[in-house]
Parts: sequence; structure tokens; C-alpha cells
Amino acid sequence: MARFLKKFDKKSGMPPGSLIFIGRQKTETPRLRIIDYDIEMMRDEFIQTIDDAVWAKETETTSWINIDGLHEPELIKTVGDKFNLPPMMLEDILNTGQRPKIEEHPDHIFISIKMLFLDDDQGQVKAEQLSAVLAKNYLITFQEQPGDVFEPVRERIKRQNGRLRKLGPDYLLYTLIDCVLDNYLKVIEKMGERIEEMEDEVLGNPVSELLEEINLYRREIAYIRKSVRPAREIISRINKLESDIISADILPYLRDLSDIAELSVDSAEIYKEMLASHITTYNMAMGNRLNEIMQFLTIFATIFIPLTFLAGIYGMNFDVIPELHYKYGYFVLLSIMVAVTITMLLYFKKRRWI
Amino acid sequence: MARFLKKFDKKSGMPPGSLIFIGRQKTETPRLRIIDYDIEMMRDEFIQTIDDAVWAKETETTSWINIDGLHEPELIKTVGDKFNLPPMMLEDILNTGQRPKIEEHPDHIFISIKMLFLDDDQGQVKAEQLSAVLAKNYLITFQEQPGDVFEPVRERIKRQNGRLRKLGPDYLLYTLIDCVLDNYLKVIEKMGERIEEMEDEVLGNPVSELLEEINLYRREIAYIRKSVRPAREIISRINKLESDIISADILPYLRDLSDIAELSVDSAEIYKEMLASHITTYNMAMGNRLNEIMQFLTIFATIFIPLTFLAGIYGMNFDVIPELHYKYGYFVLLSIMVAVTITMLLYFKKRRWI
Amino acid sequence: MARFLKKFDKKSGMPPGSLIFIGRQKTETPRLRIIDYDIEMMRDEFIQTIDDAVWAKETETTSWINIDGLHEPELIKTVGDKFNLPPMMLEDILNTGQRPKIEEHPDHIFISIKMLFLDDDQGQVKAEQLSAVLAKNYLITFQEQPGDVFEPVRERIKRQNGRLRKLGPDYLLYTLIDCVLDNYLKVIEKMGERIEEMEDEVLGNPVSELLEEINLYRREIAYIRKSVRPAREIISRINKLESDIISADILPYLRDLSDIAELSVDSAEIYKEMLASHITTYNMAMGNRLNEIMQFLTIFATIFIPLTFLAGIYGMNFDVIPELHYKYGYFVLLSIMVAVTITMLLYFKKRRWI
Amino acid sequence: MARFLKKFDKKSGMPPGSLIFIGRQKTETPRLRIIDYDIEMMRDEFIQTIDDAVWAKETETTSWINIDGLHEPELIKTVGDKFNLPPMMLEDILNTGQRPKIEEHPDHIFISIKMLFLDDDQGQVKAEQLSAVLAKNYLITFQEQPGDVFEPVRERIKRQNGRLRKLGPDYLLYTLIDCVLDNYLKVIEKMGERIEEMEDEVLGNPVSELLEEINLYRREIAYIRKSVRPAREIISRINKLESDIISADILPYLRDLSDIAELSVDSAEIYKEMLASHITTYNMAMGNRLNEIMQFLTIFATIFIPLTFLAGIYGMNFDVIPELHYKYGYFVLLSIMVAVTITMLLYFKKRRWI
Amino acid sequence: MARFLKKFDKKSGMPPGSLIFIGRQKTETPRLRIIDYDIEMMRDEFIQTIDDAVWAKETETTSWINIDGLHEPELIKTVGDKFNLPPMMLEDILNTGQRPKIEEHPDHIFISIKMLFLDDDQGQVKAEQLSAVLAKNYLITFQEQPGDVFEPVRERIKRQNGRLRKLGPDYLLYTLIDCVLDNYLKVIEKMGERIEEMEDEVLGNPVSELLEEINLYRREIAYIRKSVRPAREIISRINKLESDIISADILPYLRDLSDIAELSVDSAEIYKEMLASHITTYNMAMGNRLNEIMQFLTIFATIFIPLTFLAGIYGMNFDVIPELHYKYGYFVLLSIMVAVTITMLLYFKKRRWI
Repeated sequence: MARFLKKFDKKSGMPPGSLIFIGRQKTETPRLRIIDYDIEMMRDEFIQTIDDAVWAKETETTSWINIDGLHEPELIKTVGDKFNLPPMMLEDILNTGQRPKIEEHPDHIFISIKMLFLDDDQGQVKAEQLSAVLAKNYLITFQEQPGDVFEPVRERIKRQNGRLRKLGPDYLLYTLIDCVLDNYLKVIEKMGERIEEMEDEVLGNPVSELLEEINLYRREIAYIRKSVRPAREIISRINKLESDIISADILPYLRDLSDIAELSVDSAEIYKEMLASHITTYNMAMGNRLNEIMQFLTIFATIFIPLTFLAGIYGMNFDVIPELHYKYGYFVLLSIMVAVTITMLLYFKKRRWI
Repeated sequence: MARFLKKFDKKSGMPPGSLIFIGRQKTETPRLRIIDYDIEMMRDEFIQTIDDAVWAKETETTSWINIDGLHEPELIKTVGDKFNLPPMMLEDILNTGQRPKIEEHPDHIFISIKMLFLDDDQGQVKAEQLSAVLAKNYLITFQEQPGDVFEPVRERIKRQNGRLRKLGPDYLLYTLIDCVLDNYLKVIEKMGERIEEMEDEVLGNPVSELLEEINLYRREIAYIRKSVRPAREIISRINKLESDIISADILPYLRDLSDIAELSVDSAEIYKEMLASHITTYNMAMGNRLNEIMQFLTIFATIFIPLTFLAGIYGMNFDVIPELHYKYGYFVLLSIMVAVTITMLLYFKKRRWI
Repeated sequence: MARFLKKFDKKSGMPPGSLIFIGRQKTETPRLRIIDYDIEMMRDEFIQTIDDAVWAKETETTSWINIDGLHEPELIKTVGDKFNLPPMMLEDILNTGQRPKIEEHPDHIFISIKMLFLDDDQGQVKAEQLSAVLAKNYLITFQEQPGDVFEPVRERIKRQNGRLRKLGPDYLLYTLIDCVLDNYLKVIEKMGERIEEMEDEVLGNPVSELLEEINLYRREIAYIRKSVRPAREIISRINKLESDIISADILPYLRDLSDIAELSVDSAEIYKEMLASHITTYNMAMGNRLNEIMQFLTIFATIFIPLTFLAGIYGMNFDVIPELHYKYGYFVLLSIMVAVTITMLLYFKKRRWI
Repeated sequence: MARFLKKFDKKSGMPPGSLIFIGRQKTETPRLRIIDYDIEMMRDEFIQTIDDAVWAKETETTSWINIDGLHEPELIKTVGDKFNLPPMMLEDILNTGQRPKIEEHPDHIFISIKMLFLDDDQGQVKAEQLSAVLAKNYLITFQEQPGDVFEPVRERIKRQNGRLRKLGPDYLLYTLIDCVLDNYLKVIEKMGERIEEMEDEVLGNPVSELLEEINLYRREIAYIRKSVRPAREIISRINKLESDIISADILPYLRDLSDIAELSVDSAEIYKEMLASHITTYNMAMGNRLNEIMQFLTIFATIFIPLTFLAGIYGMNFDVIPELHYKYGYFVLLSIMVAVTITMLLYFKKRRWI
Repeated sequence: MARFLKKFDKKSGMPPGSLIFIGRQKTETPRLRIIDYDIEMMRDEFIQTIDDAVWAKETETTSWINIDGLHEPELIKTVGDKFNLPPMMLEDILNTGQRPKIEEHPDHIFISIKMLFLDDDQGQVKAEQLSAVLAKNYLITFQEQPGDVFEPVRERIKRQNGRLRKLGPDYLLYTLIDCVLDNYLKVIEKMGERIEEMEDEVLGNPVSELLEEINLYRREIAYIRKSVRPAREIISRINKLESDIISADILPYLRDLSDIAELSVDSAEIYKEMLASHITTYNMAMGNRLNEIMQFLTIFATIFIPLTFLAGIYGMNFDVIPELHYKYGYFVLLSIMVAVTITMLLYFKKRRWI
């Protein structure tokens, strides 16, 4: 399956706004969880149906509804109905193959962004879509599968005197995106460490496994750039939104996100260039090695060629070859061979070939 | 024939606005079809002459006139006359070699865009021009040849409760462009799957057929980019039009098109880079292979060279070669040869050549 | 002589505005021709001196004064005097080595642009400068040498009911530029056809003549881009002029020019990239070929090396070589040689070298 | 450790604004130093706690508080409390892995920028973060470790009639940044000298140590660009600030910084390209050398091949080989060998291979 | 010494505005020359001290004070004092290693630009800084060393009816910059001629001296671009200045400068690309040549290998080798050898290797 562009076959030909899940099913049953808090109290529970969360629309407290698993379009549709989300937004939530985007609606801000994970078994980077619908007093997030990436955020909500408890869902959204971006940096750093290490190996021991590894990293870095660059756009556009859903208090935090996004893009670019340079270096190291071997052969062979020829001469069966009958002929010839060898070695030395 | 730039010979020297078909004739007789619908009724028929469709200008219902086949300029001229289309627009419809474009006129919006198909027999991507003239209550589309690419749209028009039946020709145009763009993604994805597959083949089995295939894909991806990039421009310009022919209701749908266009361009770029990287990898794999063979030869030949020389020495016919008359001379020499061989193998081992 | 940058030696050190012809003399005597027309009448004649055309300034009819040959600065100066052209403009007309440009003056618009021709003998692209001075009711054009490139335009002026006869000199200028741009496309297409053809040759039969041809085309495409890219700028600037010398009627035609200019630039870029890719492919094809030959040698030589060694062994003259005296020694050795050969062939087969 | 992207592990999962030092501990105890001056007096002392510097907020004199060593977050927090710095700013001060940035606050301007040093032992470029908080009448700077890079600035403050004594903390900040940028140029120039030198070595003596050195410089230049390019952005943004903390008097000095930043970026780019070109040249020089050796072998071997074959022919033991019994057979054969050799040499000469 | 970035060691650590000459001393004593003229009279004299020129500030005539040689900072300081030039401007005049710049001051416009010369002996391009201070009625220019590059301008000032005599110092400055830019074109053209010539040599006779020459030209073209590109910026900024020191009369002349600057940059880019292409071509030509030689060796060696083996076989000393005793054995073997040779040649022919 094309990893860089997800299957569209199921969708094309359907009316736009048709709710069809595009992606791989990753969890058995979607899981709903609601965390409701304000400065004084905090409640965290798993719920069975979205109806158990509809009250969140009305209360003044901050509510975070998280849905893990997108493969039941009916559920998403129900969420959409209960919270008045437009059909196109639901389609965007389900289509995990699309580009990150941000859209402003009268009562909601919609953001979808990629989360990156390093799959240690396969050495591949995995991307999952995080969609978030932000309203004045609640935040709904959609993940492709249950993950514990936001566990630290939940921990921080539990601390009564934390900043999260004082500020609204816009700050919560900021915190989640901050988590996602930190993960970008972690993934890039993990790869970067290996990429920087490779430099010495490339020069010292250019084996073909290394070349395969470099190519693997190139593809993965390309995959990361594909997710990180649009994320940067999204974040710079959040900064420019003029919606009263996002309060002025969190603007400095948003600017902070821009810095991290910028740093992610920069680092990915640098590692991309470093890998390109590794390949050049690898090529050269291989070339040098071949050179070295060829040179050895050349010198070795070139020295024996005239000697073997001389031996051939005196192996001939002509009736008259006067040298053959000289008493010291054999020893003279051996001396000549030594002299030829030395002369050639000196010549090669002079041309700086050895 | 130059595929990347269509013949202009027929045209140059003619006054601008001359109606001459630039392209290859692809159907026998142009085919006219009108679909007329509103929320309550729907009519779909093939017509003989454009006169049978002129009434569409006046009625309140949404009419979609589709013309397959452009090789009869007279027909296009008649359509232009009946629907008051400016001559330059007709020329643009007939010139299938031009860049995608969008133009705003007082009563019409003109859009031309490329449709892409994958010709499975030749492995080539084919482009056809779709021109559309959008007015307040009708849409005229021109295709180079009859195709069933819009069949799903027609099916959806037939469903009485579909959104198509409720909205006007601007939404119909959106649906058609959506079809075209979905096709871009399908074509790119189909190629992308193969391109991603190639990666392993390039490393594992770099045969020259693969190189030819990579080059073929490069050319086809270049051809796709040539069509997709201007399409993105066109769509971003539709978004900025301030014409009352396009109602505010469909603006969110148009934004959706931008996303798909962006995704197409991104993916095409990624696959372009991936192919470039395949070629580098192929080159290196070939180089590695040559290296491996050369190395084998070097070592093999280098070992035999001194042995053959020794054999040559004792094949000489000097009267006096004392060693020849030693009882075990032959066996001593054989032992020396084995020793030389082992020494050389150890040396090569030490230099990490074997 | 530097073809990409014309001689400046004659000029530097002269006061700016000095009228000196920079270019090669291409015609014997400059030729003056005036075509005067309005919707009712049309006159076309060659004149001896520019004085015979001065009346064109006053009449209401559209006058097109064409001057072929720029090597008589005196003539250009006289034209300048009679039609009140500023000295810097005259200098620009004579300096055929400069970049295309457009300048707005109170009573004139000055445009200079390159015309491209394919010199079939040398396979080179030739550029000539077309300068045009547009006023309210006349157009003066300057060409480096007489050419029949505008003959079709003259033909169209002759047709009484043509659009040219109805519109003024601004439309005439548009028609001429349209001719020039169409020629760009023709030149690019002609080269493009050959460039697309080359692809198969590069893979199938990479001879060094082909490499020379590719390099020739690269240089010529570079030369074309040097002319076409500034032309695009010029044309986009015409579109933005707010001069009453250009009437609103011809704005749609000007937009059409932009499309053609854009298409020319795009195509030139595509063919540039295609040539770069040809070179890569050529290199690889050559490499493959060398690989193939080297591989053959390796295998061939490697098989004979041990055989020759064995023959050498039994050509030695030791007194005691027991094998030599076995009855079937010779035939056993031959069998061993066959066995060695087969073993090696199997080994190479296994490593997939043959 | 990834040098191009500093560890984020410690931080992620913490609430934003958590004060944690990201970097390596470089000094034992942070060192605080305050320099207080106006046109008449000047005081310079090391202090124990930040409380000894709080008075600087109130006085009219210019105060420069410098803190060397960031590994005690508590100290930074205290500084933040005493001088009312926002928590995000403190986090930025401690996180030495972030991009250079500038931020405007109501009472402060925050700038962080990288200082570059050339570590002569390892040949590596080291970057350290300089953070500065500028207020109306004081400047607080934070360095990762004590350094004498600003010593000349302190010397200049001591001179009573210097410009520094007359102008405020904004001019002091300008002077410090000027120091930092001058250091950029010094580092780049030092590397540049070596890079320009390399050119001849690459052509004349392409040893593999040189290739390693080139690769080292490429990585270091990449590292420099990573610091210098954002510095340029920062400086161009200082120029656009409209804060009354920066007085109009120092605007011309700021413009001067832009020039230096621009020059740094330009030079880094030029040296980057020069290194890329060195690698190409190196490759070619290696290729030429291999060519030269291969050519020698080819000619040498090719000459002996037929000679050895001839000797082999007359070493055969056929009963009937008439030539063997000619009286001058041997000498005739030797003459033939000389003739063959001369013929081949002439042939190679003709083909310009020798 | 780093040619691409001049020494900064002397400067760093000094207070900004310190007057220190950065460059090499090129003349013995600075030379002062004043040319004073208006439409009626003209005076040209060398003066001893700048005091002899101070009157130029007050008179209505146009005065051009030229100073050759910058190594006496005291002199520059005196000029600054007498003509009220700000210290930063004086620093810019002395620092010949900086980027070209333009600055507007209340009473002066400051421009510094590089002059390029081709040093024919070393084949190197030399850059010198020309600084100019333009005021309402005088122009002060600073050159690094005396040169006759502006001699033609002086000649033109002498001609009473020239435009220079009619217009003020702004037109004089335009004339000088025009000279400088014309020199750019001359230098580029001179190099361009050789670069275009190289093309054939690269294909026909790729010797390593040519490669060195190409590399030399690449470095020199890089050096030119480093000077020419900022010059283009400077000139486009002159065009946008809104200072009454520059009268509206000379605006068209300034636009002319833009054209020349643009042409210089374009040409430098084209030659840069052409050189890059030369290197590719050179590489390929070398590769082709190696191919050709290798192929010859392969075929030559491959033919002799089996023949020599056969000779070896019949040189063996087995007691029983029946063929040796056939009467025509020798001749049969020779015939077999000829047959083998022909077969192999035919095989190679068939594979198109010869």
C-alpha cells in the first residue's frame, strides 16, 4: 500500500460529505472518555455513548471529550449531530489520509494534525491523525487508536494548582499540540542521534547494510517532513486566527508553539541534508576502497607481467638459444628479474602510486 | 509528436480567435447530452443539435449540457453563438494544448482543467482537457472524448434527496472538479504504490529493466506535475472569485478542493523526489555489484599471478638450473606455492579485502 | 564571440545616449515600409526616407512603420527626431544585446523583445531584437534584418473585414507579439520533439554523438530560457500598464499573451529538466555497458587463470614430477580442467554474476 | 548525543513554563556581576545574590547584570521574580537548545542568540546561547559559562569619554550583539582561510585525510549556518521593533548589525558552496588518478600479452615445429617481438593513449 | 588570506565607529583631485590637503573630489570633519571588506559598490571598493588605489557641450556607476568568451589542465556574483530613494542602470551554470575515454587468454600427449587458434562491443 498517500478508492465517486473511514482499523471498539474540570473540581470517566457527554455543551466547566478509534462512522456522525458539527468537518475527521488543516467555524475551530511515533520494531515512523474541535467551553479530540501520549497532560489536570485548571479548553488544546510537537522533536532527535553517528561509520566502514540504513532514514525523514511542514503552517495560522474561542491569554503560548514547529522543520531539513551528504560520502568511501584495491592489483600484476614473459622466452624450444647454454645463464636471468622488479617499484614510487 | 507541448503549427499565423481544434480526434461524432434537474424532477437525454438545449438558458432549473468531442469547430461555434460565449473562450475550449485557466466574464465563469487517466496498456498517463462554462442556471462542459468518469455524478443526480438536487450548477461544477481531483489522487496513488515497491527491488535486484521503469515513471510523474500544479492555482483562484454566479453556500466545498489539490501536488513532489533517490540508489547498487565482482577478480587473479610465474621459471630450458635436479624439487615448489597462496590470503584478510 | 552576452567594447566609455549599433550587420540597406489602414482603406508601400512617413503622426488612421536593419544609427536618430523619441529609447533600439524591456513614456510605450528562430543548418537558435514604439495612432517597429515572420499579419490587414482593420495600433502590437510568442512555442516544440525522441536512444544506443547532441540542446534551451523568461515579465507588465495608449478593448487579448508566455516558460523548464535527466540516463547506460563488458572479462579471465596455471605446472622441467609419467596423466589433467571450469561456472551462476 | 538538536527528553510532559535547564553544565557556580555606569561614574562588582542588584531597577543609571551559568534554575527563577520577567521567558533562557528569538513585552525586550566559538582542539564549532533582557535602564544577560568574549566591551565602558558611557542599555545591547556577530565573522573567516587553501590540495594531492577534513568542514559550516541564519532574522526584526525601550539614536547602529549579519550569511553560503565544489573536484582528481594508473596498466599489459603468447607457442613440445630448427629462429622471433612492441606503441600514440 | 571574506581581526573589540583601514595598502600616498565645473567653465587639479577643497561645499558649481588610497585614516577623518560626514559612514569607507550598501542621510547619500578588474597575469578577478558621498552640489569618491577607469568620464566633462556639464553631481554619480557596471559586463564577457570556447575543448580534448581552468573560472565567477548581486540590490534601492539630492531628471538614467545590473547578474548566472555543465561534460568525456581504453584492453586480452592457454597445454611435459606426435599437430593447432580468434571477434561484433 502506498504509505505516502492513503487509499482513496473507497471514497471517490461518493458525494462529498459521505462519512467513510479512510485508514486502517486499529482498535476494537472506539473508546470515549470525558474529563471535566474547573479550578475547584476534576472528574475523569470512560463513557459508553456520546449521549453521556452532551451535558458538556451547557456547563461552564472545561470538558475534554476524547474519542479513540475512528472506524465506526456512525459514532462520529452521532457526535456531529449532538454537537452541531458540519458534515465536511466529520468527513475530515474520518479521512486520516488528508493534509493537516485548520478551519474556523462560527462556534468551533477545527484542527487536524499528525502525531508521529517511532515504531522501534520496524524502524519506521508512524503517523496518526489527531483531530480536535475546540468550542468555548469544551474540546473534542479524535485519535486513530488509544495511546498514552496524553497521559502526562491528564496527570497535570489532576494537580489542583496547575495552570491547566485555571485556563479553559483553548489552553488545553495548546497543551495537547505542545505534546504532539514535543514528540516531533523527540522522534527527530532519536533519528538525528543515529544519523550523526553514521558519519563516522560511513567514512570508516562503508558496508552495504549502512547504505540500506541511510536509505531507510532518508525515506523516514521524508515522511516526517511531510507531516511536520504542514504542521508549521497550521500553527502559524492559529496565531493569526481572530476568533473569540481563543482567548488573548494564551497567545504567548501559541507563539511558543511556532518556535517548536520551526525548530522541528529546521532540524528535519538539516538531517535530510546530512543524509544526502552521507550518501555522497559513502559513494566516495566505496570509490576510494575500490581505488585502493585496483591500485594494488595494478602494481602487483604489472610487476609480474614482464617477469613471466622472460620466463616464457627461456621456456622456448628453439634449437639455438645461446643464453640457455651459458653456465650462469639461469642466475643472470634471476638477477635481471630482481633488477626489473626493483626498477619498476622505484618508478611507481616516483609517480607516487605506492 | 511532442507530448509535453502540443502542435501549434496549425494555429500560428491565424488571427486570434480563429476556431481550430488543436488535439487528436478521439471520437467519431461529437455527442451532446443534457441533464436538467431541480429538487423535484430530473431529465437526462441525448440531443442531436445544440438548438435542442437553448431553452436551458431561460428555465430556472439547473441544466448540465455535456459535449463529448471537440473536432467539429462548427459545433462549438454554434454553442458559442447560442449561449453568447466570447470568441476567445471558444478558442480556449478547442485548444487542448493550453495551460489550465480560469476567467471571469460578466455572465459566465470559464474554467479549463486537465483530467488525468492511467493508460494501463502503455503505462502512460493521458491528459484530457475539461472545459466548463458556468452560468447562473446552467453548466456547459466540453470533453475531448466520451468517458464514464462522471457517471457516478449522474447517478447521484438521479437520487432525489441528494445534495446535488438541492443546489445549483455551481455545486455541480464543484462535484465535477472534485471527481477530476480525486482522479489525480487515484492516478498518483497507483503510481506511488509501484514507486514505493521499487525501493526494495532497486537495492536487491538492480536490473536494467528496472532503470527503464524508473525513467518511465519519472517522465510520467513530470507529466502529472505539469497538469496538477496549474490545477492548484486554478482552484485557489476559484476561491478568490467574487462573482455572484458562485453562491456563498458552496465556499466550504471549494476550500475542500484546495486541500485535495494541495495533497496532489505534495504527493507528486514526494514521488518525484523518491524516484530521484531510486536512481541514486540504483547507481550505487550497480556500483556495489561491480565492486564485488572486481574485488573477486582482483583477489583471484592476484593469487595466481605469482604461482604462474614460478611455474614459468621452472619451465625454462637453461642447461643449469640446479633446483630441477633436486629429488624433491617439485614437491618443495608445490609447498612454496601453497605457502604463497596462504600468505596472500592472510594479507588480503588483514586489509579487509575478503 | 560570447553569444550569451554581446560585445560591449564599442560602447563603454561613451556618454549614455550615444547612438551606436551593437550587433552584427545583417542587411545591406535598412528598409522602410509603411502600412496605413483604417476600417475602409489600406495602403502598403516601401519608402525611401523616414520623411515620407512623418504624416502618419497626424492622421487618424492606424500606421505601421517597419524598419528592417539597424546598422545606420543616423537613420534611427532621424526617426527619433521626427517622432520625438527620447535618446535613451533610441539607444535601447540599437543595443541588441540588452534584456527585453518595457517603458512607459508620456506619448509612447516602448517595448523590446527577442524573436527566436531555429537556424536549421547549424541547429542553433538565433535571437533577434524586435523593438516597438507604440503611440496613439501609429506603431513603429525595428527589426535587425528583413524577415517574413510578420507576413501573415500583413495578409490579415489586407482582409477588409478582419478585426485588425477595426482596432488600432495597440491591437496591431498585440498581434505582432502574439506572432513572436507563437514562434517561441514553435521553436520549443520543434526541439521538444527531438528531445522526447532522444529518450529511447539514450537508453538503447548511448553513443557519444548523442551526448554531444544533448549538450547542444542544453545550451540552446538555456539560450531560449534567457529570452523567454524576460518576455514573460514584459508581458505581465503590459497587463499592468495604466496608459490610455492601450485601450481597454484589447485587455482580454493581452491576458491571452500571458498564457502563451507562461506556457513557453513552463515548456522550456520541462525540456531543460528532461535534458538533465537524459544526461543522467546516458551516464547510467554507459556505466551499464561498461559493467557488462567488465563482467564478461572477469568471468572469462577468471576461468582461464587457474587452467593456465595448471598447464604451467606440468610444463616445468623438474627431473621428478611423477604425474608426468602416468599413462593417462594428460587425460586426467584435461578432465580436471573441465571440472574446474564447470565448478567455477556454477559458482558464478550461484552468485548471479552470469 | 545529537549535536544539531539538543535533548528534549527531560522537558516533554512537563507543563510549559517549567524551569528546567536544557544543556550541559559548564561552570561550577553561576557567577553574577553587575556593572553600573552613567556618563560620570562607573562601578563593576561581583555579587553573591541577585538581591544585591535589585536596586538597579530603580536607578537612572545604566546597569548591566551578567549571569554566567544556567544550571541553577532556582537562581533564574529568583531573577525572574525580582525583575518581573514572565515564566515563558525564563524557560527560554534555560532551554539552550532552542532557536534564536526576539520577543517584545510591555517592559522588556527579550533576545536570545547563539555565540559561536572555534574549539581549536577538536576543530569543532561550539555554540552557546546568549539571552538578554533589555529594559529602559538595565540589561540582564545570561551566558552558559563564564567567558571573556565581552571583556573588550567592559574595557570600553571603563573609558570615561566613550560612546558607551553616554548612551543607555540599548546601545550596550547593540555593542554586545556586535561582539557576537564579529565573532561569527571571525569563526567563518578562520574556516574560510583553510577552505580556500584546500582548493589547491584537492587538485594536487587528493588524499583521503583531505576528504575527511572537507566533510568535517561541511558539517561545521552547516552548524554555523544553523546559528547564523536565524540571527539574521532576529536582527532584521530588531530593526522593525517599535518599542520605546530602544531609542531612535541607536537605529543607525542597528542597521550596521544587519549588514554584518548579511555578510555572515553570505560568506557561510559561499563557503558551503565552495566545499561542495571541493568534493566534486576531489572526486574528479581521484578519478583522474585512477584513470592514469589504469591507463598505464592497460598499455603495459597489452604490450606483453601477445609477446607472452608468442613465447608460449615456441615453448610447445610438438614433434614438428619447423621454426624451432631454423638457425636464426630465436633471433628472428626476438626481432618480431620488438616489431610488435613498436607497432603497438605507435598505435597507442596515434590514439593518443600515451 | 581568505579572499572571500576580508580580515576582521584588527577591528573586532574596537568601539564601532573606530576608523581603521581594512584592506591592503595599494598606493604610496593618498592622492586628492578636484574637478569643478558648470556649464561654462571646468577646472581640474590635484590638491595637497582636503582644506583646498572645502570651498566646494559652498559654491553652486558641481565639484567632484576624488581620493585615491584609503590607508591614511587620518585623512579620511579630516574629510569627514570638513564635510560633516557621520563616523559610521567613514568607517564604511575604510572597511573595504563589507557588502555594497546605500544609505540616506539628511544631507548626503552614501553609496559603496565594488569595482571589478580582470588581473590578466593571475587570471584573477580583483575587486575594489568605490565609495561615494553625494551632496546637493558636490560628490566625493573614495577609491582604494589610483586607476584610470574614470578617465573617459573626465574626458567627457572636458567637452563643453556634453550632458555632464549641464547636469549636477547626481548625474556625475550615475555616470561613474555606469562605468563600474559597464566594467562588470566587460569582465563577464571576457570570461564568457573563454567559457563558451571551453565547451568544444571539454568534449574534444579533456585534459586535466582544462579541469583546473574550469575550476578557476568557477571560483572567479562565484567571486563576481558575490559583488554583482548586491550591486543590483543597491541600484534598485537608488531607484526608490525619495531624496531631493537626486533630481527627477536623472530617473530614466537610473532605470537604465537597473537594466545593466540585471543583465550582469543574468549573465553571471548563465556562465555559472555553463561551467557546472562543463564539469559534468568533462567527467563524461573522461569516463568515455576510460571506457574506450578499457574496452580495447578487454577485447585484446580476452582474445589472447584462451590462445595462451592452448600454448600452455602443449608445452606440458607429459610422457603421453598424443597430439604432440601428429605430423601436422602444430599446424592444426595454429589453425584452431585462428578459428578461436575469429569466433571471438564475431561474438564481440555481434554484441556490438567492437
